[in-house]
Amino acid sequence: METRASIAARSAPYESEAAPWIALSLVRGLGPATFKKLADFFGDPTLALSASAEKLAVVPGLDRPVAERLLGFSAWSEVQKEIERTEAAGATIVPYASPLYPARLKAIVDPPPFLYVKGELATSDERAVAIVGTRAASDYGLGLTRELGRGLAALGFTIVSGMARGIDAAAHEAALEAGGRTIAVLGSGIDVIYPPEHEKLYQRISQQGAVVSELPLGAAPLAYNFPARNRIISGLAMGVVVVEATEKSGSLITAAQALEQGREVFAVPGAAGSSRSRGPHRLIRQGAKLVERVEDVIEEIAPQLAARAAAPEKVPAVLPADLSAEAKNIFTLVADAPRHIDEVIEQSGMSPGKVSEVLLDLEIRGLLKQLPGKQFQVR
Amino acid sequence: METRASIAARSAPYESEAAPWIALSLVRGLGPATFKKLADFFGDPTLALSASAEKLAVVPGLDRPVAERLLGFSAWSEVQKEIERTEAAGATIVPYASPLYPARLKAIVDPPPFLYVKGELATSDERAVAIVGTRAASDYGLGLTRELGRGLAALGFTIVSGMARGIDAAAHEAALEAGGRTIAVLGSGIDVIYPPEHEKLYQRISQQGAVVSELPLGAAPLAYNFPARNRIISGLAMGVVVVEATEKSGSLITAAQALEQGREVFAVPGAAGSSRSRGPHRLIRQGAKLVERVEDVIEEIAPQLAARAAAPEKVPAVLPADLSAEAKNIFTLVADAPRHIDEVIEQSGMSPGKVSEVLLDLEIRGLLKQLPGKQFQVR
Repeated sequence: METRASIAARSAPYESEAAPWIALSLVRGLGPATFKKLADFFGDPTLALSASAEKLAVVPGLDRPVAERLLGFSAWSEVQKEIERTEAAGATIVPYASPLYPARLKAIVDPPPFLYVKGELATSDERAVAIVGTRAASDYGLGLTRELGRGLAALGFTIVSGMARGIDAAAHEAALEAGGRTIAVLGSGIDVIYPPEHEKLYQRISQQGAVVSELPLGAAPLAYNFPARNRIISGLAMGVVVVEATEKSGSLITAAQALEQGREVFAVPGAAGSSRSRGPHRLIRQGAKLVERVEDVIEEIAPQLAARAAAPEKVPAVLPADLSAEAKNIFTLVADAPRHIDEVIEQSGMSPGKVSEVLLDLEIRGLLKQLPGKQFQVR
Repeated sequence: METRASIAARSAPYESEAAPWIALSLVRGLGPATFKKLADFFGDPTLALSASAEKLAVVPGLDRPVAERLLGFSAWSEVQKEIERTEAAGATIVPYASPLYPARLKAIVDPPPFLYVKGELATSDERAVAIVGTRAASDYGLGLTRELGRGLAALGFTIVSGMARGIDAAAHEAALEAGGRTIAVLGSGIDVIYPPEHEKLYQRISQQGAVVSELPLGAAPLAYNFPARNRIISGLAMGVVVVEATEKSGSLITAAQALEQGREVFAVPGAAGSSRSRGPHRLIRQGAKLVERVEDVIEEIAPQLAARAAAPEKVPAVLPADLSAEAKNIFTLVADAPRHIDEVIEQSGMSPGKVSEVLLDLEIRGLLKQLPGKQFQVR
């Protein structure tokens, strides 16, 4: 039964935009899947907080106990405390409805209702690749991670990972060193730095990208939290690269979730019989793409990049303004007729290295596509 | 124009069964593909040597110059010399029509008209796996080769390779050490040991398997010969395992021919970026199965093994006589109902290692098949 006081509380104008989102998160039993149902029904899911019992009764799939808890919600002082703690932690709250909320993550079946963000999300983060792997990485795995992370970051990809020891940390560091962006998704509250020795890394990521979490402030890094966290890692990315992972590694969960989310899964091979490569090898046997170099990753996600580039206005009528003179030359050459890379090298008079670099850039921009046998043509 | 003498020579009864086959091989322009046409037309291709001009004129696809050379063939002294040289080399000639000629090789589009054989071919060689790779192998590659070679040989597979330095030699040696059979296919005459330091290996292989070649005695190991030789390696085998191979390696030609012949192609992964693993990694990207262990190979060829086992009389009514008591127990358990390996371990009371070994044996014999998730059922 609704009392006057509770109705007043539920319909009070919120001091903070974040308040109703936090309120939803405090309703017991209201997880991401239920949240998605509310969003589908109301458009703005926070309207559920002021909806009538009759209205809530017709939300498809909404459990009755959850509806009752929504009707009876009054823990606004808790909400206020969480907002204050967030501010104290130097973090912000980015709700599902915000234009800052990552578009790719929004599209998964169970998106977090909001993210605690330390640092800043950017629209360019839509072009993201996750790199994950074991905490107990080998020098080989760390080296490969750095190479892939640096290369992808230098090409403008945001590197997403979990800030764990080993592969995760190496992936973030590589992106930072390359001057690129990186996002760390925590399995703890945004104010709980784990492992503790990654405090400096945490600060650097929040200055050159973002640390994010869906968990309440103060949440401990419990093993229980990690599978759910992993869906955010894959949800943010176009594809997930697994560098080293044992057969029971959480990275394989990330890979499985990536597949469910329709993301590309990449795996880096290693020595046969090595326990750290058992995970990637299993993924490859199951259909993941074997990748050794940045180019291997690009080749697979190029169609997605191109689709995005082409989506707003089909093929661009004019070339992007920031295209270098070399890139314009090469684009013109290939626009004239599909060409083999060797022809492009010969006709452009540029070095093979430069030509490769420019072709890759044009491919990523969705202006050219690569055909089998190093042939290139305009899209 | 035929002379009386040439007719007499062409229809003379052969002193050696091998004579007409060698004669065919001495006809210029009569390669394996033409040979196959003669076999298709005449049944016994040696009948082409005594066929009339009218008859030869209607053989589909037979070039006129080759037909003329067949009609004019008179180099019987050359034939005799080749026979004597073969005997002197301690080798025999196994023609296409012989029951000893490998059935699998017979089925390729361009089978050798006959094989020079040093040692003995066996009907059990029908169950063969080729292991090939680079001459400049790493310790890693050699180790893996030995492991796979030993394991497969111990399970009764004949190991086929090319007797080259590196991976090839390690594959043969592993089979020999495991007490199994092995076949070396040379890219030179059967009497030309190359590389020379493999003389001892050559002798051991010919005592515990066979060295074979389709090339005339004395033929030098020219690079030119190797692609054709490689089709015999893959042609003899159910599948080809490529352990280490650079991007320009002949092993990739073997793999491509294996695919054309409908053979399985397996590739062993290695460190990303290693030039020796570039070949296998490329194959995996193109669809070859990543294999690390003997079990991975078996899993892929098990359906072929089973098809062969089932072919004569569908499912065997009685279990093979040489089945161990343990194997009979496990077979009975699984025949009762499909079971997970853990159930089999529990119910049989045997060690996990023993159960795995027995299940693998039953799978190879085509009595059981493995379903996803380590489930087993009778075929």
